[in-house]
Amino acid sequence: MSDSQPIGVALLGLGVVGSGVAEALERRRDALARSVGAPLELRKALVRDLGKPRPFPLPPHKLTLRMEEILDDPDVRVVVELMGGETPAGEHVRRALERGKHVVTANKELMAKDGPDLLALADSKRLNLRFEGAVGGAIPVIGALSRDLLANRVRSIHAIINGTTNFILTRMAEDGMDAGQALRLAQERGYAEADPANDVEGLDAAYKLAILATLAFHSPISTRQVYWEGISRLSPQDFRYARELGYAIKLLAVAKRDQDGLEARVHPALIPEAHILAKVGGVFNAVEVAGDLVGRAVFHGLGAGPAPTASAVLGDLVDIGRMLLVNAEPPKAVPMDRSDAVKDMSQVSTRYYLRLHVPDRAGVLAKITRVLGDLDISIASVIQKDTDPVTQTAEIVITTHPSREAALRRSLAMLGGLDVVKEVSNMIRLEELPS
Amino acid sequence: MSDSQPIGVALLGLGVVGSGVAEALERRRDALARSVGAPLELRKALVRDLGKPRPFPLPPHKLTLRMEEILDDPDVRVVVELMGGETPAGEHVRRALERGKHVVTANKELMAKDGPDLLALADSKRLNLRFEGAVGGAIPVIGALSRDLLANRVRSIHAIINGTTNFILTRMAEDGMDAGQALRLAQERGYAEADPANDVEGLDAAYKLAILATLAFHSPISTRQVYWEGISRLSPQDFRYARELGYAIKLLAVAKRDQDGLEARVHPALIPEAHILAKVGGVFNAVEVAGDLVGRAVFHGLGAGPAPTASAVLGDLVDIGRMLLVNAEPPKAVPMDRSDAVKDMSQVSTRYYLRLHVPDRAGVLAKITRVLGDLDISIASVIQKDTDPVTQTAEIVITTHPSREAALRRSLAMLGGLDVVKEVSNMIRLEELPS
Repeated sequence: MSDSQPIGVALLGLGVVGSGVAEALERRRDALARSVGAPLELRKALVRDLGKPRPFPLPPHKLTLRMEEILDDPDVRVVVELMGGETPAGEHVRRALERGKHVVTANKELMAKDGPDLLALADSKRLNLRFEGAVGGAIPVIGALSRDLLANRVRSIHAIINGTTNFILTRMAEDGMDAGQALRLAQERGYAEADPANDVEGLDAAYKLAILATLAFHSPISTRQVYWEGISRLSPQDFRYARELGYAIKLLAVAKRDQDGLEARVHPALIPEAHILAKVGGVFNAVEVAGDLVGRAVFHGLGAGPAPTASAVLGDLVDIGRMLLVNAEPPKAVPMDRSDAVKDMSQVSTRYYLRLHVPDRAGVLAKITRVLGDLDISIASVIQKDTDPVTQTAEIVITTHPSREAALRRSLAMLGGLDVVKEVSNMIRLEELPS
Repeated sequence: MSDSQPIGVALLGLGVVGSGVAEALERRRDALARSVGAPLELRKALVRDLGKPRPFPLPPHKLTLRMEEILDDPDVRVVVELMGGETPAGEHVRRALERGKHVVTANKELMAKDGPDLLALADSKRLNLRFEGAVGGAIPVIGALSRDLLANRVRSIHAIINGTTNFILTRMAEDGMDAGQALRLAQERGYAEADPANDVEGLDAAYKLAILATLAFHSPISTRQVYWEGISRLSPQDFRYARELGYAIKLLAVAKRDQDGLEARVHPALIPEAHILAKVGGVFNAVEVAGDLVGRAVFHGLGAGPAPTASAVLGDLVDIGRMLLVNAEPPKAVPMDRSDAVKDMSQVSTRYYLRLHVPDRAGVLAKITRVLGDLDISIASVIQKDTDPVTQTAEIVITTHPSREAALRRSLAMLGGLDVVKEVSNMIRLEELPS
């Protein structure tokens, strides 16, 4: 394929994704060599157990328990970190960079927590640190934000970046399942882990949003600055009412910049049914970037899984290989020269959907609307639903115009204390999307 | 912003897109300098008329009528070609490369016709030739195919890459307009040119498909190898029947590779209404790439207009600037080492939608289905519609299973000759999309 010297690669981690990358390096060796201009040679893989059976077994001499073996091998030019988690992956990545090795990682937790520091380290060493696989699987959104859209002033990101929850919400919307049934189905199909907390509670999406927002706004944004809330409070009724109102419900990751600062938040949201994000079903992900030149661009694809992640990791690896072959230094990292404040969630304004369980009698609505009016929360629509003749109760669904979260939270406390409200059954944010 | 020397840029053409790029270079000078690491300095713009009023006027000393002034200026490192058309743009691009200048172009016609040659020239000179703006406006699909998805074996591309026709088809589908009304509306809104032939007849999309297919399949594919057909035969009835059958109608650009070779074709197509491409409305574009690792990835955004094109052009310019700053040579061009044959359209298999005008009497359907059966064209559905009691005629709508185009064309000739067929009113291909 090429007379050039092979480019040595080491893998950290041989789980399903690591094995997928190892397999692709082997099986498409010739095609990759043509794209790079030289073969990519897997020299070593760091594992915790030499004898464990693996989906794509490597010859024993390629396995090692010791990171030093990789660091000390001058022929390893690129280290691919696929262990996940912060420890010890972060230490390994740092040491690899310090020893002059380029790094590719798909580790969202690491990049969300230490991304800006690690990128600065790579930059100071004139090395590549690439992480396309960390967000949105195979969707090349990291590349788009770091390169193609760099001339834009980004206004907002609206993203569906957790496949597990999107699968669950799709089943709830389409089949009327409750959250528990849908989660069990996701687990049966391998779309949810045995402990699904990070996905279901929104933390996984918060990691990814921190990475996207940092790149989009040229401002280091940590996961601690991202508000996150999961999907467990959603019930089949909410999906029914949302549909009646013309909305879908998605776990939405939102980052925005306006004159008052930045917002970064992950929570379930009603979004207009006709919007392209509402059509993102099952385990698919999508990211919409709005910028002053691009208008709106949407990237849609498989957000996880061994093959899509391998696509992203190998894309980064091929790109680094192509640069090494012409002895090109990487361009400097995207500047992180802004430090806009991230608003506290209480300062954020959105629209809201409220579902209240009330006695079915006169005067109820008047008392509720007075509470909202006193807090300057303006009502967009009210529907009364599902009167139960036996218990003499009903459900009221209210949508509001944009209001401050702080005011809305006070209203929930006050509504809960009214004698005409049996229960505030749910509050879901309703998101105006860019058009 | 930076102590680095400015990077000199020359523009060829100051129409709406060129003026948009000039304005962005001026107005976001500081932000671009931060992203690049050095200012991008517009040194000269080549125009045909020095005195013409322009949307963003440049000082007279920056305008020139002579390409030599740009070629002879050693401080011009990057030439941005935004004249469009093959002549003289192609000659200018070639000369700029020969004189050692990097080139950014948004010229689809040039890249479709001479792309592989020009890329080889740039490669031999170790120069960048970038063309993100040539397809899909601001949608970074060229970058995705040349970099991020490079480890994939691409199976197919399905794209909506002409905003003018998509606007027209959206109005026909949503408002029941006929093609002429919708075209006039597009012209009023500035979405269609006074002479819309290239858009409406499919040639514009064929140029773009040739570029995408060349990159995706690593095989030089010229526009001459692309089958193209426009939207003028579509009528409001077709939209009505398509919707009843669960389909939308789009001008679809399709490129595929299978064991028999390549397909590259542009034509109206029925696509499933639930597919994300069916949701692409108005002047938006979208490109779906299916590959063996990525699964399906969709890129969606504004396909034309000064700002989106400027976003793509500036993205390329910033990327080149960042490389120049670290003295990096560009990586070698995507390999063009395959030369799979492109099938003649008669050899392509798709499904079909046929609309026939027939007398409303017994035995009609039997004769029609016999013709199709004799040619091994298998019927998927038949509906008889719109019986007219006065003329005693009806419409029959047939969809087929996948059949060879050659057989289908023979069937149309034979059906047209039947005494029980007054008219073969339309034939539209029906596309199975990857899932």
